[in-house]
Amino acid sequence: MAKKQTSKVRVMMLGGLNEIGKNIAVIEYENDLIIIDCGLAFPDEDMLGVDLVIPDFTYLEKNADRIRGILLTHGHEDHIGGIPYLLKQINVPVYGTRLTLGILESKLDEHHLLGSRELVTVEAGTVLKLGAFKCEFIRANHSIADACMIAIRTPVGTILHTGDFKLDVSPVSGEMMDLTRIGEYGREGILLLMCESTNVDRSGFTPSERVVGSALDQIFMTHTDNRVIIATFSSNVHRVQQIINASVKFGRKVAITGRSMINVVGAAVELGYMDVPDYALIDIADIGKYPQEMITIITTGSQGEPMSALYRMAFSDHSQVELTPNDLVVLSSHAIPGNEKLISRIINELYKKGVNVYHDEAIVHVSGHACQEELKLIHALTKPKFFMPIHGEYHHLMQHKELAEFMGMDPKNIFVCDIGQVLELDHDSCKKNGTVTSGRMLVDGYGVGDVGNIVLRDRRHLAQDGLIVVVATVDVDEATIVSGPDIISRGFVYVRESEELMDAVREMVRDVLCDTLDSGITEWTQMKTAVKDTLSKYLYAKTKRKPMILPVIMNV
Amino acid sequence: MAKKQTSKVRVMMLGGLNEIGKNIAVIEYENDLIIIDCGLAFPDEDMLGVDLVIPDFTYLEKNADRIRGILLTHGHEDHIGGIPYLLKQINVPVYGTRLTLGILESKLDEHHLLGSRELVTVEAGTVLKLGAFKCEFIRANHSIADACMIAIRTPVGTILHTGDFKLDVSPVSGEMMDLTRIGEYGREGILLLMCESTNVDRSGFTPSERVVGSALDQIFMTHTDNRVIIATFSSNVHRVQQIINASVKFGRKVAITGRSMINVVGAAVELGYMDVPDYALIDIADIGKYPQEMITIITTGSQGEPMSALYRMAFSDHSQVELTPNDLVVLSSHAIPGNEKLISRIINELYKKGVNVYHDEAIVHVSGHACQEELKLIHALTKPKFFMPIHGEYHHLMQHKELAEFMGMDPKNIFVCDIGQVLELDHDSCKKNGTVTSGRMLVDGYGVGDVGNIVLRDRRHLAQDGLIVVVATVDVDEATIVSGPDIISRGFVYVRESEELMDAVREMVRDVLCDTLDSGITEWTQMKTAVKDTLSKYLYAKTKRKPMILPVIMNV
Repeated sequence: MAKKQTSKVRVMMLGGLNEIGKNIAVIEYENDLIIIDCGLAFPDEDMLGVDLVIPDFTYLEKNADRIRGILLTHGHEDHIGGIPYLLKQINVPVYGTRLTLGILESKLDEHHLLGSRELVTVEAGTVLKLGAFKCEFIRANHSIADACMIAIRTPVGTILHTGDFKLDVSPVSGEMMDLTRIGEYGREGILLLMCESTNVDRSGFTPSERVVGSALDQIFMTHTDNRVIIATFSSNVHRVQQIINASVKFGRKVAITGRSMINVVGAAVELGYMDVPDYALIDIADIGKYPQEMITIITTGSQGEPMSALYRMAFSDHSQVELTPNDLVVLSSHAIPGNEKLISRIINELYKKGVNVYHDEAIVHVSGHACQEELKLIHALTKPKFFMPIHGEYHHLMQHKELAEFMGMDPKNIFVCDIGQVLELDHDSCKKNGTVTSGRMLVDGYGVGDVGNIVLRDRRHLAQDGLIVVVATVDVDEATIVSGPDIISRGFVYVRESEELMDAVREMVRDVLCDTLDSGITEWTQMKTAVKDTLSKYLYAKTKRKPMILPVIMNV
Repeated sequence: MAKKQTSKVRVMMLGGLNEIGKNIAVIEYENDLIIIDCGLAFPDEDMLGVDLVIPDFTYLEKNADRIRGILLTHGHEDHIGGIPYLLKQINVPVYGTRLTLGILESKLDEHHLLGSRELVTVEAGTVLKLGAFKCEFIRANHSIADACMIAIRTPVGTILHTGDFKLDVSPVSGEMMDLTRIGEYGREGILLLMCESTNVDRSGFTPSERVVGSALDQIFMTHTDNRVIIATFSSNVHRVQQIINASVKFGRKVAITGRSMINVVGAAVELGYMDVPDYALIDIADIGKYPQEMITIITTGSQGEPMSALYRMAFSDHSQVELTPNDLVVLSSHAIPGNEKLISRIINELYKKGVNVYHDEAIVHVSGHACQEELKLIHALTKPKFFMPIHGEYHHLMQHKELAEFMGMDPKNIFVCDIGQVLELDHDSCKKNGTVTSGRMLVDGYGVGDVGNIVLRDRRHLAQDGLIVVVATVDVDEATIVSGPDIISRGFVYVRESEELMDAVREMVRDVLCDTLDSGITEWTQMKTAVKDTLSKYLYAKTKRKPMILPVIMNV
């Protein structure tokens, strides 16, 4: 991409539109480019074997010398999970609040990038001058502490990027979202609002995180004889704080288990985001030293993740926690779509152990995202000239468009975009103008991008019906089969009970090979195709399955 | 299994406990055995390539000569889907209401069993004498018409099997569940209650199906300018009836699309379960002859099933229906756990077409299963001596046990069983006594049971990381490699961009083979293991992936 001189601001999302996750926004003006967030997404079920999904960085790599920095709104995976992969390609400073950078540091460490990249701590109110842009971090509420919106003054007007947010009028710690500052920007005039859309299909207001605290108190009050084990998202520092508060109030010691929970709580306590009395926390190895009813265990695994601490407890595989009917397990979380069956599996195991289970998410969980009334509040405060709904699947973006129209916006000023699509703005106009390279990169093990459509198609084929390898050595000159054919199958049928079928396959391949050799065919491809076609037809007729067939025919 | 003379009644579930689906109950006394229902289950995500799951019939095959009949409670897949597979093994009469048998007939037809098996139509009130058992069908309400409970008088007392049910005080057609008859059995004394548990975790009563009718009227009233497309479960005849009623009321013609919808509506109309005026139904090919706003289309695909009619409409692949922004699509259904993402995909596509989508299941759907208050009602009416919760995962069964205790039952008289576990009853005792063979059979294509753990393990392995086939011909006597090694990979890495890796692999295999040949190893197994181990370690270090490695080494 050539660096085109322009007096317009260009805005594009390289991820986070028409999908959940891998949120990343790009804003550029002449020779300056800034990035807001760079998250990952989790693979769909049909992306077999893929560990995670990150944005396509092609556009950023080509424009590396223009990039002035990466600004982070908060420390969730879908906003920072792609950073290590991006920083491997380009070395630019990263700006974020303390907790956000605290979480990022452990990721950079895993990728051996810590120390070689510049991380700059900011706080709500910080204003950064990055090339042509003046960026202010504004306090927001969210299901992770230290979340911010970002207001960007550009040469053509102000852009407000909300990150993820909710309005919490009584946050557990820290303060309410800075409505005043948002309102001041609104009064001054906002050119473009980029607002998240996750909960746009829910009416009303999202309840305060504090209502979960009351529910927890209630639970502790009515379960004074039980050990209590609570699973929640490790990044929800306020939730963890409330669990600790309730425990302390009822005279309990708190033990933490699960790698990410230990990491995040450690970082949050160290950075001052959590307030935990020294006497309250004990090592998970020491839980046996106290009466059961004096113990609270906070654990990972609320999404049913195999090998998480809660999963291991449920399947009697946790080295320190053995569950008994005296335990109460609380799932203080929401099932992320796709995880319902995994969670159900854990709940069944807990019931089998006679454990009490409390999993009414309407009571022991609240969302971190703005519902319709809160979104309307932001629209009313900011009264933007132009609006781009972000962070959502297509139906979220469209519902957010409808909401903005309800709030009085002209449909012509609302831009539902796709990733890579460029919005071009000046003082009084905004229009879609072209696209840049965008998409997804699949990460599998150490490989980034080497698993693509062909590899996935093969994996799906193999997963569906397995494979058959046909091996034979032939002597083309003599037109005879020298050895084989041997048939190897995997994932197709249980071979020991299908000997008849396998014998028939072997006969059939022998016949096909003899026929082709007899008719003077010496082209490998032709010979292989003959074997494949005949076998494929035969197997489908016999079994109604279509295994992958790999013929390997060698000449002596 | 020897036919043991006994004066006790033995009751067991061969499916439907600790799982959702493949419901099947067995009741036996001395030389007589009856079966209630025989359903299928849908495969979990980790059962790659499996089409469906049916109960293990070993016990029934061994006791075939004792089986007096199969009684069906209703026509849902999880209650009758296993019948064709069972009838292939044993030929016994099947008893069910007209609609139930009507649906079963088309299944038997597909399996070429129709005509050679005895189907006997019953109705609510019918009493069958089957060996030692007197079985009465009792009218129930459910999300399919013609559902029944079954009361079985045995020599030691009466067993009530509820099938699936809800209480509908204002059913769309037919009558309310026969509480009187249930109450009479209760007054007479019920030895064992076998009651379904699907909705035991929901408080209150399930609303009447009729409330959906009002919601539909409301939708038609406010969308007089739109064509309306409604997706629902094809087996929910009453729902389809209500959609037709609302359409007729608002002067619309109704077209049906989707194979199972056409089949079920056809059967239901023919058998008199639906009341459709001749002028109301039109062929889907004729929808163009009427103004759009005079058309209602009823379709399959409410679970997001790929290739269903709604899916094809959404992806512009339906030959008769092309969606436009003037269409309103209503999802009159509930997302079965695991289908959330599929449904979301369709909704996004509909939004992309500008179609209006209505998918608030709280308004346009009601469940077919009894909630807590209805379950309590059955317990209060029947006051059983013993109770066995059925049809549910473990946590459902345990919650149902708690509900029964709340209703005053002694916990000792409640039996939460596993499939295959035998309950032995006489006039005043009930106890668990041993187990019979039970489990699941996986159906893949024409194969029943030939896909087991080993095949699935291989499929999962292949799906996760793909495979590498290593082929070489060696001359053991000369200790040389005659041809190869060739490397074939599928689903591992994108080969065209990984030539370096593939070259390295080839080199490595050559080295290993030379080494083993040089050191005089002539055992194939040893040679293959050497190749496998070395390659596996190397690939994991390089890629963090573990493809399946298939070494094929041949001697000249």
